[in-house]
Amino acid sequence: MEATTRPVIGFLTDFGLDGAAATCRGVMLTICPNAQIVDVSHTVAKYAVGDGAFILRSTLPFLPIGVHVGVIDPGVGTERRPIAIRAGRGDVLVGPDNGLLVEPAEALGDVAEARQLSNRALWLPSTTHTFHGRDIFAPVAAHLAAGDATFADVGGPLDPADLVRLERRSARIGDGRIDAAVIYVDSFGNLRLSATADAVEAAFGAIPPGTTLRADVAGTALRVSWAPSFGHVAPGAALLYRDSSGNLAMALNQADLAARLGVRSGASVLLERGD
Amino acid sequence: MEATTRPVIGFLTDFGLDGAAATCRGVMLTICPNAQIVDVSHTVAKYAVGDGAFILRSTLPFLPIGVHVGVIDPGVGTERRPIAIRAGRGDVLVGPDNGLLVEPAEALGDVAEARQLSNRALWLPSTTHTFHGRDIFAPVAAHLAAGDATFADVGGPLDPADLVRLERRSARIGDGRIDAAVIYVDSFGNLRLSATADAVEAAFGAIPPGTTLRADVAGTALRVSWAPSFGHVAPGAALLYRDSSGNLAMALNQADLAARLGVRSGASVLLERGD
Amino acid sequence: MEATTRPVIGFLTDFGLDGAAATCRGVMLTICPNAQIVDVSHTVAKYAVGDGAFILRSTLPFLPIGVHVGVIDPGVGTERRPIAIRAGRGDVLVGPDNGLLVEPAEALGDVAEARQLSNRALWLPSTTHTFHGRDIFAPVAAHLAAGDATFADVGGPLDPADLVRLERRSARIGDGRIDAAVIYVDSFGNLRLSATADAVEAAFGAIPPGTTLRADVAGTALRVSWAPSFGHVAPGAALLYRDSSGNLAMALNQADLAARLGVRSGASVLLERGD
Repeated sequence: MEATTRPVIGFLTDFGLDGAAATCRGVMLTICPNAQIVDVSHTVAKYAVGDGAFILRSTLPFLPIGVHVGVIDPGVGTERRPIAIRAGRGDVLVGPDNGLLVEPAEALGDVAEARQLSNRALWLPSTTHTFHGRDIFAPVAAHLAAGDATFADVGGPLDPADLVRLERRSARIGDGRIDAAVIYVDSFGNLRLSATADAVEAAFGAIPPGTTLRADVAGTALRVSWAPSFGHVAPGAALLYRDSSGNLAMALNQADLAARLGVRSGASVLLERGD
Repeated sequence: MEATTRPVIGFLTDFGLDGAAATCRGVMLTICPNAQIVDVSHTVAKYAVGDGAFILRSTLPFLPIGVHVGVIDPGVGTERRPIAIRAGRGDVLVGPDNGLLVEPAEALGDVAEARQLSNRALWLPSTTHTFHGRDIFAPVAAHLAAGDATFADVGGPLDPADLVRLERRSARIGDGRIDAAVIYVDSFGNLRLSATADAVEAAFGAIPPGTTLRADVAGTALRVSWAPSFGHVAPGAALLYRDSSGNLAMALNQADLAARLGVRSGASVLLERGD
Repeated sequence: MEATTRPVIGFLTDFGLDGAAATCRGVMLTICPNAQIVDVSHTVAKYAVGDGAFILRSTLPFLPIGVHVGVIDPGVGTERRPIAIRAGRGDVLVGPDNGLLVEPAEALGDVAEARQLSNRALWLPSTTHTFHGRDIFAPVAAHLAAGDATFADVGGPLDPADLVRLERRSARIGDGRIDAAVIYVDSFGNLRLSATADAVEAAFGAIPPGTTLRADVAGTALRVSWAPSFGHVAPGAALLYRDSSGNLAMALNQADLAARLGVRSGASVLLERGD
């Protein structure tokens, strides 16, 4: 065995920290003892499929190519389909067909192929209606990671166009105006927006760092400084910045903007020229 | 070295997330560098031995056979005994003799053998009165996992009948009536009850999914639908279901029942025929 | 490959649990697939460099010798220096030059050598202004752990005397009096103080366990019992004890003293003879 062949399994859920994720890790390690499980997050807001998709699409491109399991699954035990997606980079994503996995697959080079999990030989011998993470997703992923099943083994093909996709509000870029939405509030309370950082130049021209813009976030007006990083404004002051994924984001230096404004994912954000 | 021989150490505490668990992981990896540590949970409610036992007994059967450390230990540094239990499946559980480990051992095939930790050669060279997780339990477990100590090496035998056991309120099943208690509130706010799901048929006959029952939870009346999974009732509606361990549980679809009712472990739950 | 050669990377941040730490783990495992990452904590209070330093200095001495990454970095993207410190024990610490790493290095045998990270060949190919954990610290640490870079490769030498140090209020020990400060509130709400446990004998003589002292914590008076461990006082009662690092600490048995008193790091603590 080469050290470098340890198969990586990325793992994200909304299970919280009280044992359910460990149960799945146990299932995966039983099937694939050599797995290097990378816990991406298990504290995603309950049922927040969009938040989970954002975290996976931001994180997975920095993991080694692997098999990744995502389980935010309010429809567990109903007719929603269990699926696997092969992404362009070579990763396989396993989870429910509810939009959680498509954006992450696109961030890994697009949806190359999709299949519906139907081969029960790769599931736990008995399954329940309420814990498909343990009974279906974890074992399928572990069999793939262990190399004792191929992508084609998991079940029949699906047309990628038929996969459930998230509805995201896209940004509108005008002359001197960006109309966007909060798509994720990170653990610092920074607002990640539905626009790329390049939208700033498109809307406002080549403004220098330190330029002030007017913002309206879900009805609250504030002034934000276009800045390279947090420490370029005073503690507690607001900035607009290019986040680490190249998207536009808004924050307070060393304080929690989302808590200050009382906003969550979905809040509208309007940016205009200001002084 | 075979990949499959990496020894598994399951690990549960109420230490929280601020470094104490990592200190123990460091001790274990110093003694057994090849260990595959599986963190089960470190956010168990402080001092909640019963919650920890519930999580361990639900989780450990899905882990590979291994050595498992449980540390919820309000009596650390007093005369409560440090113990190890060998379970029927072959696992060894290490921790305090306060009830935390007996139910999990039973879930792993029963208590086969118990010993009191007394062989200080397996402990850290110097021990403290307040951190036996680091000083005693982690190193003993790691020596066992590494194979440089046997179960008999840890200390003298104990009569399994002398181990401290949790007092659990058992359920009473009558004709048209189940009288139970909440034994655990999971991270979704679902109530895990002290009755198996088979109690439903025993009390109410072969009722079809969708049948409504009357519930009283710690004095609050509500209607619950006997359902296979969450999505079989409307968002926010209450259901009674067979949980992933085969026990009876009560939940709201996509909402937190425990928070809604303000209940915790120990709350009484009465189920009766209703309409 | 020998099992024992798996390189250890300790990892502490204030990133929270939503994907940023996993992104860094992915970067590290891409560069050093065989790394044994030990997550020390990712829930350090935001921007709390002093808390992070306390946790690292308490935890790292119990980890195998390794490369350790600490990222609590309110100055990310400004002129604060990225550094690496080689400690006496042989560990290397990587992170920002803001005081986070010096105390931990001292706990590992002192600062043997320091360097400023400037060799961009060891960074990610493109870097951002807001996520040096991912772009600089994680990859540098992973290259060191993988052995494809030496400590001298990371950048030019720094005078250890020029490293930023935390300002800590030291304790004053008088006859019958200890004047100290809270330097950390642990997850149990116990107050870790800026005095060693030996200060008790220095101030009060060889007092027996059970001796009561008078305490004033940020203006609140209470009686504390000098005790070996929590269970030596009644549930809810206050004790003064030697913590697991040999320092002085104050707690309630099975309750949260910091929450009860409403105190945080920095609060003053006065101990005097009492009855």
